[in-house]
Amino acid sequence: MTQTDFDVLTVGNAIVDIIARAEDDFLVQENINKASMNLIDAERAEHLYAVMGPAIEASGGSAGNTAAGIASLGGSAAYFGKVADDHLGEIFTHDIRAIGVNFGTKPLIGTPPTARSMIFVTPDGERSMNTYLGACVELGPEDIDADVDARSKVTYFEGYLWDPPRAKDAIRLAAKIAHDNRRQVAITLSDPFCVDRYRSEFLELMRGGTVDIIFANEAELKSLYETSDLPTAMSLVKNDVSLAAVTRGEEGSIIISGDEFVEVDAHEIDVLEDTTGAGDLYASGFLYGLTHDRNLRDCALIGGLAAAEVIQHIGPRPQVELSDLLAQSGI
Amino acid sequence: MTQTDFDVLTVGNAIVDIIARAEDDFLVQENINKASMNLIDAERAEHLYAVMGPAIEASGGSAGNTAAGIASLGGSAAYFGKVADDHLGEIFTHDIRAIGVNFGTKPLIGTPPTARSMIFVTPDGERSMNTYLGACVELGPEDIDADVDARSKVTYFEGYLWDPPRAKDAIRLAAKIAHDNRRQVAITLSDPFCVDRYRSEFLELMRGGTVDIIFANEAELKSLYETSDLPTAMSLVKNDVSLAAVTRGEEGSIIISGDEFVEVDAHEIDVLEDTTGAGDLYASGFLYGLTHDRNLRDCALIGGLAAAEVIQHIGPRPQVELSDLLAQSGI
Repeated sequence: MTQTDFDVLTVGNAIVDIIARAEDDFLVQENINKASMNLIDAERAEHLYAVMGPAIEASGGSAGNTAAGIASLGGSAAYFGKVADDHLGEIFTHDIRAIGVNFGTKPLIGTPPTARSMIFVTPDGERSMNTYLGACVELGPEDIDADVDARSKVTYFEGYLWDPPRAKDAIRLAAKIAHDNRRQVAITLSDPFCVDRYRSEFLELMRGGTVDIIFANEAELKSLYETSDLPTAMSLVKNDVSLAAVTRGEEGSIIISGDEFVEVDAHEIDVLEDTTGAGDLYASGFLYGLTHDRNLRDCALIGGLAAAEVIQHIGPRPQVELSDLLAQSGI
Repeated sequence: MTQTDFDVLTVGNAIVDIIARAEDDFLVQENINKASMNLIDAERAEHLYAVMGPAIEASGGSAGNTAAGIASLGGSAAYFGKVADDHLGEIFTHDIRAIGVNFGTKPLIGTPPTARSMIFVTPDGERSMNTYLGACVELGPEDIDADVDARSKVTYFEGYLWDPPRAKDAIRLAAKIAHDNRRQVAITLSDPFCVDRYRSEFLELMRGGTVDIIFANEAELKSLYETSDLPTAMSLVKNDVSLAAVTRGEEGSIIISGDEFVEVDAHEIDVLEDTTGAGDLYASGFLYGLTHDRNLRDCALIGGLAAAEVIQHIGPRPQVELSDLLAQSGI
């Protein structure tokens, strides 16, 4: 094994979020699947922006948020993702580097432009995403920096990467490099509809040994195993990966590792503002713990702590130093 | 008098804010005047962005924020300001229209790009702005839509407009049109350093009858009259304009109209997050009240209500419908 320089390498769709509040009626009117990621084309992006309320812009992208959270916790993180050489691409690049993440993926010159996701936050704090993938469709195996990959303790990627055409080839390469260097590989299932689109491929990644660790929320795990019963899904997942972290919103999270089973409560919050980034930041905290030799309970608690910060404000990345919160928490 | 279609027309520098948290030490290191608007050129903008932490982007600009607040309160507002035909210009245009403001100023084709202000929010919630004026330098009398101007009950503009070269000519024209149509004209003094740059011109606007109403915070009013004594400044301002609204942060505000003198407490808040937009939203509430035949005390209270909303989150414009807050407030 070579020296490790990064706790976690994350790979994902590099996206700038455009975030506005909206009523539930609006989602119905515009035919948006609530609490999900809706893929949209350029024309629909233009339409939705025209009917969207006043917004703010913030760098996002699931795995990008996770890397940002790890850096904010004081861990070392790297990120691979494709932006274009345009203004949104500059914003994305600035923000992920400014929080301390190593990010060197070559931007796409020309079109399509940097990806953006129009996120509507309803009064219950739930987010409904509408993602135009833009430059992300160009991510491919040539974007995997083998050196960074080999030097990362964990390589983590989004299920969302099965949407663009060549990113799955990039991930297969990244996973091989990681395993060749005796590192671990993790996936997040991303979204119940995403699981629906790629169920058999995700199961094959798990059963074929391409991934060792999975992150999923309850809906995603149930979708994966096509069951409405969580215990059934949990009894199945333990045979398919060595470690699974299942998030359950305000119910906390459950970790499954062989016959070990750890359940923790959610971290307390004052007001739920915007769930965007909740799962991503949970993964940050969990992976920070895992790569700092914490036990599984602590990993889950740090995940909950990071998720609690991000859901108490608009925007998908931490607004305070998570390392301070962690130090204060006594975890 | 023709029919009025707008409660308030506001005119200002059209700016997108780039907002990050920073420590006080950073302001000292980077030689940034705290709690002020620092004008910067393109080169310094590039430097500051390089050293800035992770940021979010939100449409801003003092008078733009005020117009947005009036619309959010349920009033009718129009806005004149210059963006370029670039991505930040699209964001600015989208956001101000999406909140319900009439905005039709022709964007600048080509360079310089849309203005941006890098805003550093320190742990005390105070904001320190670094503004690259970009396309704003092209605002001129040709951008004054006489019809909109004539149909607005109040024409309100920023003292900041004295920084770009030709905007003051635009304002003199706008004020003339307003007065020809027997409307009122208001100015905000914007910033103590701005007052320092244009003190004699601002006093001339007031004494010469170009403006009827002024908005100022305590520091700006003291700077205007070059005194450290607020009562002295207040006794002077009542001779120079028919109505003055003086904001005092957590001390509330004072209204001076001839010999009438109204003092109100600040609206209570839970946590001060970011003072950006406090004065702008106070002006929104005050002008909403004034154009809806409220008495001066109510105008000041509505101003305080709107300011309280905007300082409890990051970003310079309201994140909830101010009309709902007003209805609930009983004011």
